[in-house]
Amino acid sequence: MSNVNKGQFKHVTIIGVGLLGGSVGLAVKSLDPSVQVAGVGRRQSSLDAALKAGTIDTAHLDVAEVVAKSDLVILATPVGAFEKHLKTIAPLLRKSALVTDVGSTKAAVVRIGERIFGKGGQFVGSHPMAGSENKGPSFARADLFAGATCVITPTASTPARLIKRSEKFWGDLGMNTLQMSPAAHDRATAQVSHLPHALASLLMLLPGNSELPVAATGFRDATRIASGDPEMWRDIFITNRKAILAALDKFDDALVDFRDMIELGDAKAIEKMLAKAKNRRDATIAGRRKKSHHTAE
Amino acid sequence: MSNVNKGQFKHVTIIGVGLLGGSVGLAVKSLDPSVQVAGVGRRQSSLDAALKAGTIDTAHLDVAEVVAKSDLVILATPVGAFEKHLKTIAPLLRKSALVTDVGSTKAAVVRIGERIFGKGGQFVGSHPMAGSENKGPSFARADLFAGATCVITPTASTPARLIKRSEKFWGDLGMNTLQMSPAAHDRATAQVSHLPHALASLLMLLPGNSELPVAATGFRDATRIASGDPEMWRDIFITNRKAILAALDKFDDALVDFRDMIELGDAKAIEKMLAKAKNRRDATIAGRRKKSHHTAE
Repeated sequence: MSNVNKGQFKHVTIIGVGLLGGSVGLAVKSLDPSVQVAGVGRRQSSLDAALKAGTIDTAHLDVAEVVAKSDLVILATPVGAFEKHLKTIAPLLRKSALVTDVGSTKAAVVRIGERIFGKGGQFVGSHPMAGSENKGPSFARADLFAGATCVITPTASTPARLIKRSEKFWGDLGMNTLQMSPAAHDRATAQVSHLPHALASLLMLLPGNSELPVAATGFRDATRIASGDPEMWRDIFITNRKAILAALDKFDDALVDFRDMIELGDAKAIEKMLAKAKNRRDATIAGRRKKSHHTAE
Repeated sequence: MSNVNKGQFKHVTIIGVGLLGGSVGLAVKSLDPSVQVAGVGRRQSSLDAALKAGTIDTAHLDVAEVVAKSDLVILATPVGAFEKHLKTIAPLLRKSALVTDVGSTKAAVVRIGERIFGKGGQFVGSHPMAGSENKGPSFARADLFAGATCVITPTASTPARLIKRSEKFWGDLGMNTLQMSPAAHDRATAQVSHLPHALASLLMLLPGNSELPVAATGFRDATRIASGDPEMWRDIFITNRKAILAALDKFDDALVDFRDMIELGDAKAIEKMLAKAKNRRDATIAGRRKKSHHTAE
């Protein structure tokens, strides 16, 4: 992390003080200790935990208390609550303030942002691809984002200046930024994140109680994401419905094809598919050395 | 590991000198350096690598050279080659020798073992649930099995004495042993290992090239097993065909149900399923602290 962010934002408001919101708070403060980070939560207990973890400087149950002086507002609640928060803050905000989010789906969120702030308005969607199956401010880390990818999702009407400020913000936190349209982002994440989550959860419910003791490290890793927060993931499945259904149907077609290979005992076709998958993974995913942020299991 | 194994077996023959076979060799020798470990392979290059890695004491392209003096023979090739090897060794073996294997499927293997050696014969199926997506003798480790589970799969006609010897052998290598019938083993592993492998491989082939860069640690972990050896896994899908098809159909039913919840936007049902999976995982799999044996990625 460099100190180049100093000065861009002086008053940051984070709505939602869990793992992601808390980690943004810690990262921003570690970059520039003079930044004032205001945390907004719906329960005093969460706010107290965030204050105790040092992820925020001031705690607020009502965003109206603090948002007028913010130059950056970050939504870090489950995406289902974004619309309510954006409606509340829109009339109170400075015109120069940037509003962004850390939500896992983008088309619905950006649509709401543009509806509330207008096209060319203050909202730029972003999705820092970092996280953990753990939840809550006590798991927040200043380096959660370092080395990971952040997808910025401008539309044709997003001002270039706001895109740059967003890129600089996440870049200063150590992230590699990447621009995609909200729809392309949602199609991609449906396939590399949302569908995998559904598969992991369904897999976790498949074996009987007497069969689970046979599970080894493969099952443990294949199901790790199923330990994620059900409420957050519920919102993802609701807001990215269309792209997830498309990914699910594409996957189910491939699954049925593979079923046919097994039914027919087509050893050649089975090996070919497995080798193709192995080669693709070894050439792309397996080589990534980004440090893992989840707890050791 | 204790030294109690000393004396049980003096001449061990391992057919197949890859990761699993090599790790058995190292583990046996670390337990009792006086044990003679003979390695059998189909390529001189693999045998040379195994000798170099110190996993075997002597190397043989022909199992007939060495098997007559063995008191333990372990099959560690892909399961598709087991029948050929068992037929070759059966007429040459001492009557007191124990024959076992490390194969990932058991019903077909045990059926072949009982056909060749007779019911109540020298063959006892076993499945040490340890491994890695890496392949070859250079990844072999003396402690690969320590702390992991080994499923022993006797039938009604397996002599109790042979079951005990098998349990003692794997137990001495640090494993927790568990008895299941071959069919129950195959139903369980189809659900906790074989189907998850198929899902990981298909998932790895789902996203387009422009979408793969969005993949983060969740996708990396969910697909880790897809880097496994295609030849070994092909044999698993062929030999455990029936149980895998049953697991696949059960999984596909659950997937279709989940698709309906998304299609209908049934937030309550989605959250309920996700929470059930999370709770089950957190209560069972997530708490397992067994050290991981695969390479860091």
